[in-house]
Amino acid sequence: MLDVLFRPKSVAVIGASTKELSIGNRIVKNLIDFGFKGSIYPISLKSDEILGVKAYKSILEVPGDIDVVHMVIPSKFVPQAIDDCGDKGVKFVILNGGGFAEVGPEGAAIEEDCLVRAKAHGIRILGPNCQGIINTDPDVRAYCNFTFTKPDPGSISIVALSGGVAETIHQAFSEMGIGTRMYASNGNACDITIPEILNYYGDDEGTRVILLYVEGLRDPEAFLKAASEVAAKKPILAMKAGRTEEGAKAAASHTGGLAKVDLATDLIFEKTGILSFTDEAELCHAAVAFSSQPIPKGNRVGMITNTGGPAVIATDVFVNAGMEIPPLSKKAEAILQEKLFPEASVGNPIDVLATAGAEQFRTAIDVIMDEDQLDSVYINFVTPFFVDAESIAREIVEVNQESKKPIICNLMTDKRQWKGTVDILKEGGVPYYSFPSTAAKVLTALTKYHEIRTREIGEARRFEDVDRENVAAILQKAKGAGREWLSATEVYQILGAYGIPTADWQVTTNSEEAVKAAAEIDFPVVVKVDADTIVHKSDVGGVVVDLWDNDAVRSTVEEMEERLNTKDLRFLIQKYLPGGKEIIIGAKAEEGLGHLVMFGIGGIYVEIMKDVIFKLTPVTTVEAHEMISSLQAAPLLRGIRGGKGVNQERIVEIIQRVSQLVSDCPTIQELDLNPIIAYEDQVLVVDARIFIANSH
Amino acid sequence: MLDVLFRPKSVAVIGASTKELSIGNRIVKNLIDFGFKGSIYPISLKSDEILGVKAYKSILEVPGDIDVVHMVIPSKFVPQAIDDCGDKGVKFVILNGGGFAEVGPEGAAIEEDCLVRAKAHGIRILGPNCQGIINTDPDVRAYCNFTFTKPDPGSISIVALSGGVAETIHQAFSEMGIGTRMYASNGNACDITIPEILNYYGDDEGTRVILLYVEGLRDPEAFLKAASEVAAKKPILAMKAGRTEEGAKAAASHTGGLAKVDLATDLIFEKTGILSFTDEAELCHAAVAFSSQPIPKGNRVGMITNTGGPAVIATDVFVNAGMEIPPLSKKAEAILQEKLFPEASVGNPIDVLATAGAEQFRTAIDVIMDEDQLDSVYINFVTPFFVDAESIAREIVEVNQESKKPIICNLMTDKRQWKGTVDILKEGGVPYYSFPSTAAKVLTALTKYHEIRTREIGEARRFEDVDRENVAAILQKAKGAGREWLSATEVYQILGAYGIPTADWQVTTNSEEAVKAAAEIDFPVVVKVDADTIVHKSDVGGVVVDLWDNDAVRSTVEEMEERLNTKDLRFLIQKYLPGGKEIIIGAKAEEGLGHLVMFGIGGIYVEIMKDVIFKLTPVTTVEAHEMISSLQAAPLLRGIRGGKGVNQERIVEIIQRVSQLVSDCPTIQELDLNPIIAYEDQVLVVDARIFIANSH
Repeated sequence: MLDVLFRPKSVAVIGASTKELSIGNRIVKNLIDFGFKGSIYPISLKSDEILGVKAYKSILEVPGDIDVVHMVIPSKFVPQAIDDCGDKGVKFVILNGGGFAEVGPEGAAIEEDCLVRAKAHGIRILGPNCQGIINTDPDVRAYCNFTFTKPDPGSISIVALSGGVAETIHQAFSEMGIGTRMYASNGNACDITIPEILNYYGDDEGTRVILLYVEGLRDPEAFLKAASEVAAKKPILAMKAGRTEEGAKAAASHTGGLAKVDLATDLIFEKTGILSFTDEAELCHAAVAFSSQPIPKGNRVGMITNTGGPAVIATDVFVNAGMEIPPLSKKAEAILQEKLFPEASVGNPIDVLATAGAEQFRTAIDVIMDEDQLDSVYINFVTPFFVDAESIAREIVEVNQESKKPIICNLMTDKRQWKGTVDILKEGGVPYYSFPSTAAKVLTALTKYHEIRTREIGEARRFEDVDRENVAAILQKAKGAGREWLSATEVYQILGAYGIPTADWQVTTNSEEAVKAAAEIDFPVVVKVDADTIVHKSDVGGVVVDLWDNDAVRSTVEEMEERLNTKDLRFLIQKYLPGGKEIIIGAKAEEGLGHLVMFGIGGIYVEIMKDVIFKLTPVTTVEAHEMISSLQAAPLLRGIRGGKGVNQERIVEIIQRVSQLVSDCPTIQELDLNPIIAYEDQVLVVDARIFIANSH
Repeated sequence: MLDVLFRPKSVAVIGASTKELSIGNRIVKNLIDFGFKGSIYPISLKSDEILGVKAYKSILEVPGDIDVVHMVIPSKFVPQAIDDCGDKGVKFVILNGGGFAEVGPEGAAIEEDCLVRAKAHGIRILGPNCQGIINTDPDVRAYCNFTFTKPDPGSISIVALSGGVAETIHQAFSEMGIGTRMYASNGNACDITIPEILNYYGDDEGTRVILLYVEGLRDPEAFLKAASEVAAKKPILAMKAGRTEEGAKAAASHTGGLAKVDLATDLIFEKTGILSFTDEAELCHAAVAFSSQPIPKGNRVGMITNTGGPAVIATDVFVNAGMEIPPLSKKAEAILQEKLFPEASVGNPIDVLATAGAEQFRTAIDVIMDEDQLDSVYINFVTPFFVDAESIAREIVEVNQESKKPIICNLMTDKRQWKGTVDILKEGGVPYYSFPSTAAKVLTALTKYHEIRTREIGEARRFEDVDRENVAAILQKAKGAGREWLSATEVYQILGAYGIPTADWQVTTNSEEAVKAAAEIDFPVVVKVDADTIVHKSDVGGVVVDLWDNDAVRSTVEEMEERLNTKDLRFLIQKYLPGGKEIIIGAKAEEGLGHLVMFGIGGIYVEIMKDVIFKLTPVTTVEAHEMISSLQAAPLLRGIRGGKGVNQERIVEIIQRVSQLVSDCPTIQELDLNPIIAYEDQVLVVDARIFIANSH
């Protein structure tokens, strides 16, 4: 529980200093200047007083209790200072300084030492190598942080590993005049984690929106749990950087953390209902609207404009984002026709004209608020000198305060001359932006969030007809034998045990058995070589398809026996399935998080078009359907050009059986069902590989 | 020549007024407040003086010459006023008021009347329904415009049909403190066009960058000519809105203009070397950098940062945009190792650390300037309170003034507290932004512009072996017969006349001829029905492929004769070409602009994946190659999975022959070669349609 960290009654600064440009001075100054409601205890060997506040030689000399201690001393002195804090009964330590894991093994050892001692004392650590926290709650006013932008109270709370990014966001809010609720940057994050901070923000009543910046997740499972819980309570807007290999490399070098180019973070965002951004300016703009506006109930926007071009731009943004701009009802049109100027355009967008005053704007806004088929209001508001812009702003604010539908405003003005108008909107909680695209993107973010939160992904279906023990035994045996790739027999047995349908198969060891198997399976058949030493069958000419009689099977096997002269040579005889549509289902273990499951259409679509969809296990029925429908080439599966579609329900089931298989058997590192042949009725795996973890 | 419009020595305002909130008052006020260097003549029936300036009852009473006249009177009085201007020898009229083509046929008639009279007098009209112009040249200071944001001198000139968008952009520059050079918004644009204004800005020495906003092009040919000439002299940054059908609808309703969802504008931008944007905020941010920075010579960026996270974000942007962040030379690393702090990271990005001062920053910048393999400098500059940020800013400015490589800065600071630092960068001409993504996108725009300008598209190849007269005769005959779709014979004759290779074909009228033709062509063959009344052959079962003998041909033709019982029934017998790769080449007339030529890979790729590329005629060899290489599915044509590639040189030639054909024969409205079968050696058209303009 981080309550004492974010709402301390007393803060000490070990390493407090009278030197103006030192961090030890700045933290004391920030606490004083921001009006911290608790006690401030500078700890300094050199000075009796820092910035007018009595200083102590040691925290042990401080008369009262201490909740939070900043340490701004060289890392080598920190472990001992933590012991002192333990003696004093301190609850939280913020390690602002560097010299820990981020500088190499020696620093990492100090960091580990600190953590061990802190745990012994029941002390929690924020950092090291971090800025600290801020809480603008008027009852607290804790600026426990060495940054330099004075916080204003607000309702958006920021959490980020990177202090630089957190501070940039914090500055943006400060410049927009909308403030921040809480702020935490935890640097190396040796103890207190982002999931913990998320949970705390989730419980904080003053936090309306959470803004998260990450470069990778240390403990994805804990994050997933916290994010699911918190995202159900309030919007989490997030950005993950380090998306490119170069970006990840830069990320890895700048903290002691571990980042990788991972899909998993995006999938966690998707699964937990976090709204994800790839541009931090867009993230900040959106956060402002989330902090004051209701979430729209749908994607249908009503537009009001008093100038043409910006409405064209906004319309482009909306339509490209899948928003709708439906026509107005006859009733609405009649009202507008009566009350707007004759030349006004009474469609959607409503063009009230540049000459429109407060009355015309109000009429248009009221009309949109009353239209059941409209979910949100977008206003282009240019301020010609010949209208009373302030009275227009006041009308917008009045409707806004009813919080019926979200209102987003593109305010095109000279903000110095029209300061009164700007201030009315700002104080009235109307989000305003300087460009039509910017404002329109914010409204699409609100709408996207509505879609995310109303999407019921349901539960993963669990199949009871599976033989988990059998699979465990197969995997155990392969592991025991030190093998990483499973044999064909093992692979097909595992698929069979999980009810994943495969083309009929038998494994044989010579041509005689092969001929017998082929007759039982029924022609045409395929012969595939199977041996521990051969991973890529096709590359060694180990696959021959479309064999129609005994002779063909016999000669094929005998030819392979001679050519691929290796021990343990086996031959998989399998039913040959011509026609049908090739699809691919795969799974890949993701450390600490289960597996990623992949779906795609075989051949060109996967290899060239990169048209594949991933989901995190466990994959629900809704998600499995989404995997199919969100493929670019999805129409191919529905049947086009007179071709037949394939059995999508069967594909959905196989995806979920794969999801259950890899979830039940985390030993499986990679699984590839490639290809699976899908027909109008049946869907059958015809080739599969399984790779298991083996560390010998 | 618009020189007198943009550099008037005297301006009159017909309809000048003492009423503070009137346009007739505002224009006079703007001229006075901005310090217009010429004479101001308010024309008013009611007042002798407006804002302290002597007013006249009529322009005929004005003692001196008048260059430019604003008209702020009801539209019905404008024609007479134009005649007065003619008598007075006025050169330019700015029609600020509405009531013209934008309100319907009656207004359009007045607009036409004005234009006729103006032409008779040799007067040019800007507008009607427009804001006017601005020229901030200190020798002129013409604020001939009723907007309300006081212009600052700068080097970016703005031209837009939409006053709302132009003003938004102008405000953005004003807020950023970088000013504007010239400004023109021409509303209904009945006379003076955007191409003319572009040409004028092109010749204006004070204009370093041109910023263009359009919603569609009235006269694409004139635009193409002007843009080609001007873009060769200075950067044109442009945005086209009305990209979605809804957006275009909004565009069409807000001016008297004509907008459509067109590819052509993008293709003109591409062909003339205009840098295109889809977000007006990004456009403005980029324009600032273009106005002060040199264009980089390549895509290799050197990064400097004093904080981690923002470098990660910028890296993602760069890599996603195809920029490179190459490693530093050993020599550079050695210099950095010697001069930066020990913990600094001496790779690329160079992390100088938050504690870095002016010396460290300067070292890092100098190193990047000296590295031959780096083309530009990106700086993340956070201003911790413990460093002297102003001295860092001064070093950046000093290097910037050498203009060796572009410098873009992401300045993360509290702009109120660090105003000194901000001002140093601003006055030193260093473009600075508040977010890493924003700054990184600006640098990618500069780099993209370098690529655009250094791309040599060459000339279109002209084939001399074509029979243009023959094609003209065929088209003339079809036109004379009132047909819109050409017959198979005509289509194949036209292709033949332009050297576009087709599968062997003969047109026959009965089964006997068909059998004979098939034997000559050689089996296997295809039978396709051909009749004036049948446009979609496949839909009526009029195509049968893979026929191997006389009987098959005979019975196919006879069956069709019986079933498709229509007059003029003909049968195209064509060589059947199995295997190969299906491709599509098409062309479509674009009014006033020639044709769009399309290339794609047949079937699924065109229909489902929408993977097609368009270019404008005439298509050069470079462009034809680009059409192939920029397809997402391009690897299919190069040969993958052991498959053979196709003859791309032949495809390039066919694209260019098609380009020449439609350019030579503008009657052709649509041409579809679909499919064309491409092999390793030959590339043959197997089906084609041509649609011609016919207005009977």
